[in-house]
Amino acid sequence: MTKRSAMLLAVLGVVLCSGLAASTACAQSDLAAVTDVQIYNRAIHVMAMLLLGFGFLMVFVRGYGLSALTATYLMVATAIPAYFMLKTSGWFGHPAAGIEGLVLTEFAAASLLICAGAVLGRLKMWQYMILAILFLPAYMLNEWILLDGGWGLVASGAFVDTGGSIVIHAFGALFGLGVAISMTTARDRGAAVASDFTSDRFSLLGSMVLWVFWPSFCAALVPAESVPATAMNVIIALCGSTLLTYAATVVLRRGINAADIANATLAGGVAIGSTCDRVSLPVAFLIGAVAGLASTFGFAVVQDRLQKGLRLVDTCGVSNLHGIPGLLGGLAALVFVGGINCGAQGLGIGITIVVALVAGLVAGRVLALSGHRDQPYQDATEFVE
Amino acid sequence: MTKRSAMLLAVLGVVLCSGLAASTACAQSDLAAVTDVQIYNRAIHVMAMLLLGFGFLMVFVRGYGLSALTATYLMVATAIPAYFMLKTSGWFGHPAAGIEGLVLTEFAAASLLICAGAVLGRLKMWQYMILAILFLPAYMLNEWILLDGGWGLVASGAFVDTGGSIVIHAFGALFGLGVAISMTTARDRGAAVASDFTSDRFSLLGSMVLWVFWPSFCAALVPAESVPATAMNVIIALCGSTLLTYAATVVLRRGINAADIANATLAGGVAIGSTCDRVSLPVAFLIGAVAGLASTFGFAVVQDRLQKGLRLVDTCGVSNLHGIPGLLGGLAALVFVGGINCGAQGLGIGITIVVALVAGLVAGRVLALSGHRDQPYQDATEFVE
Amino acid sequence: MTKRSAMLLAVLGVVLCSGLAASTACAQSDLAAVTDVQIYNRAIHVMAMLLLGFGFLMVFVRGYGLSALTATYLMVATAIPAYFMLKTSGWFGHPAAGIEGLVLTEFAAASLLICAGAVLGRLKMWQYMILAILFLPAYMLNEWILLDGGWGLVASGAFVDTGGSIVIHAFGALFGLGVAISMTTARDRGAAVASDFTSDRFSLLGSMVLWVFWPSFCAALVPAESVPATAMNVIIALCGSTLLTYAATVVLRRGINAADIANATLAGGVAIGSTCDRVSLPVAFLIGAVAGLASTFGFAVVQDRLQKGLRLVDTCGVSNLHGIPGLLGGLAALVFVGGINCGAQGLGIGITIVVALVAGLVAGRVLALSGHRDQPYQDATEFVE
Repeated sequence: MTKRSAMLLAVLGVVLCSGLAASTACAQSDLAAVTDVQIYNRAIHVMAMLLLGFGFLMVFVRGYGLSALTATYLMVATAIPAYFMLKTSGWFGHPAAGIEGLVLTEFAAASLLICAGAVLGRLKMWQYMILAILFLPAYMLNEWILLDGGWGLVASGAFVDTGGSIVIHAFGALFGLGVAISMTTARDRGAAVASDFTSDRFSLLGSMVLWVFWPSFCAALVPAESVPATAMNVIIALCGSTLLTYAATVVLRRGINAADIANATLAGGVAIGSTCDRVSLPVAFLIGAVAGLASTFGFAVVQDRLQKGLRLVDTCGVSNLHGIPGLLGGLAALVFVGGINCGAQGLGIGITIVVALVAGLVAGRVLALSGHRDQPYQDATEFVE
Repeated sequence: MTKRSAMLLAVLGVVLCSGLAASTACAQSDLAAVTDVQIYNRAIHVMAMLLLGFGFLMVFVRGYGLSALTATYLMVATAIPAYFMLKTSGWFGHPAAGIEGLVLTEFAAASLLICAGAVLGRLKMWQYMILAILFLPAYMLNEWILLDGGWGLVASGAFVDTGGSIVIHAFGALFGLGVAISMTTARDRGAAVASDFTSDRFSLLGSMVLWVFWPSFCAALVPAESVPATAMNVIIALCGSTLLTYAATVVLRRGINAADIANATLAGGVAIGSTCDRVSLPVAFLIGAVAGLASTFGFAVVQDRLQKGLRLVDTCGVSNLHGIPGLLGGLAALVFVGGINCGAQGLGIGITIVVALVAGLVAGRVLALSGHRDQPYQDATEFVE
Repeated sequence: MTKRSAMLLAVLGVVLCSGLAASTACAQSDLAAVTDVQIYNRAIHVMAMLLLGFGFLMVFVRGYGLSALTATYLMVATAIPAYFMLKTSGWFGHPAAGIEGLVLTEFAAASLLICAGAVLGRLKMWQYMILAILFLPAYMLNEWILLDGGWGLVASGAFVDTGGSIVIHAFGALFGLGVAISMTTARDRGAAVASDFTSDRFSLLGSMVLWVFWPSFCAALVPAESVPATAMNVIIALCGSTLLTYAATVVLRRGINAADIANATLAGGVAIGSTCDRVSLPVAFLIGAVAGLASTFGFAVVQDRLQKGLRLVDTCGVSNLHGIPGLLGGLAALVFVGGINCGAQGLGIGITIVVALVAGLVAGRVLALSGHRDQPYQDATEFVE
């Protein structure tokens, strides 16, 4: 072998390898596109939760189903462009665009729908859109403080809340509670919130849509390699809450209550949110089971007392489904996540409670200025033909 | 270092690199398989739109829900094998097989279901299958002319219609209008098309299924890297039509009309089809908003006059949901897509109008030969037990 | 060129190539993560089938819809943790964990829900959970024998049943039949299983959810490159059963029967399971068509005689939807799969029949010990408020 042939061989090696890498192997940019499409798929699952899930869950109010679905449509259609525009601008934390921006937008819309559940049936249709406008800045402020290091209050990255037990669920429920405290009238307190056989079946349809797609909600933004384990934790937590909801409803109600089944079964999904990508399966089951128990207890025992004590009506019982289980989920991180920054976690939870309640109380006052419905819980007052 | 060692090193380089490329990097063929599975996912979303979306949207006709769902099943089950067989044969344009073939097949089935909405409730069950057989060749002819350069009328690749505003929606609606013109009897014109509370809720269920999965419909065949932006445009357009539908129904009807909410909210999805992968978000919102306004105006104001003027009944108002917004979408490409071939775009739209109407009129005549239903809009005439 | 420079070049070659492979090309591990997320997507589709599909299909029983949905929730929530725990332990065959484990878990839950359809409405709510506990070990034993070479009865890998015609559908149906034989009382035989207009529409909703996502059920665990062809086979088989169901119901019933449409349309999905990744499209259509015909014949003609002959009630007619079409699917492999091990296939089918029936009969006896419902098919006996 001559020097020349050695050189040629070496050059050939470089060229061949580069060629191989370029032509037969897929590049990181291809993979990034594929990964974004996978996040897109989960974003579509979350969209199904927003419209079909939350929408139909709220159809349980007898004679108010068309309004509940229309309000869901309008709140989603208001919140998505508004949040996306604000978020990509970068005014509230890092400017998330593309598919990450869409998922964060859907999270905001989910929190808004939770909040609206507290006053469902007592707003005029256009007031749901005003509620969306009043809700979003407060939500974004809280999100920015907890997740983006806003004002330096909570160290960026220290707050553990992957699937939004605190930022999405507890915030939405507490904001809604604030609005309900400000807005509930004596007439509202006298009007029954009732369901019937068909409205209950539609409500269970919404419940099951939420159950099915909840793993995609919690795993929407986790890296691809963590998606299966995160999803499994969410599913097992939902199994835990479903089983305990049944046990609790039978004991506390002396029979099965359809609203408990439609709602508290989902408490495991709410509560596993914070820690869904960080705990083991038995812990996930435990968190779900405790949440299902607490939520059913909330619906069966606490709700009446809370409503009388605070002189409010929480139409969908969001404090029981999203409030208590959400807070439980955020606190569970303190117990089950190794090396957690307890100060940051506790502070973040505290800030959420304060911001949500205060902003909700104020929003309720503002909304009340624009009037009250004469007849709560009736499609007929606004629908024609 | 000897010559031999240099040579060995060089050979080692080649071998190592080839090994690396082969063993640790994924090949383009792997990526192609993964990308096809992603298209498959969107194809399943479109399938949900066909059966659950279009099917339940049509359940709004009181007392005809079982028939509407059965007809949906039968039309889909007829159209899929028929179109797929014809399309893979290559008689109409390029022979699309595999997952691309499935998506194109679903597009054809969607257009058929739109068409059937115009005469829903006035065909005997087996006539829906005849309609499918009459519809598909005309649909494939138009698709071939507009998208595959058939007969050299429209330059291949020049017609802008990614999500099918023209080829799928306008074609289906206009074909259906043609059938309705040919088939509507005096008895049909006297029979009321009415909904009730439960049929409206099922219809809103279908509407929401369509809304949720519409991004996958429009992005079904776009490259992976364009999926997120395309999806976002579709979502924003749907937000635009949803908001304007509400505003328009309240103004035009002096109250909210459930059928407007179930239908016109989707007009943004119809109209953004042509340009979904080519416009910016504000333009997408604008297109959606205009389409929602036009569609609601169609349902609230135009429909009655059109039906009287043309002596037809358009059961689902497909001219308002798919006809006008579809044409708007195709024309929007002329305004918002830079460097568009205006001649080709205009010609394609014109051809679609002519082919769809003429073929629909003929198909209606043929169908009428096989008889008319005695009692329109009633499950009871065909269902037993 | 000196020796040194040749050496340097060669080293450069190695370094460059390694760098290229590591930095711009995606590794196999990335691809594996992406592929797992794709399986996850199909697993979510299957979850939609479990809750929304099977759940709502069973809502057809008038006045028992809340119970049917609650029972679905409870059986899924019981089966998933129980099966997953047992399966990952490795006691029954290879220890499947991760996303493969989730899919196998869902398959078990599907089989359980099929089984429960045979006795739907005649168990107290907590008895559905007992049924789950009694069902799973028998299911896992059969799965282990047929698919994992358990006891060396069926050669590992020889039994052809990709989408579970035998292991999932026939097993569930036959186990359910066994339970029904053991448990059906004289009072049960006297109580009518009736549907109404709204319960039928909900049932068709469940049916369509199953139809839409069935391709993901059968393709859940096939390699990425086989997913599109497998899915297409499933879709074409479902088209075949849908068309033949309509033809058969009209002929056999002298009119359309809503339950036939909701159920027998799906028989193609059941029967194509065994061979979904191994046959051509025409064969898939044929298998689906025959299954649809047989299933409709079962509902319209066989069911009454079977129930009287065996003195049982099969509430949902699972023998007609999952039993006969499942067995047909397993036998179709003998005809259409080249080089199949006929002995193993036949033996596997035989074992399934024996294990399912015997275990079901025993499970029914055990369940009967814990009592019978006084009033079958009524929500009111267990639901309050």
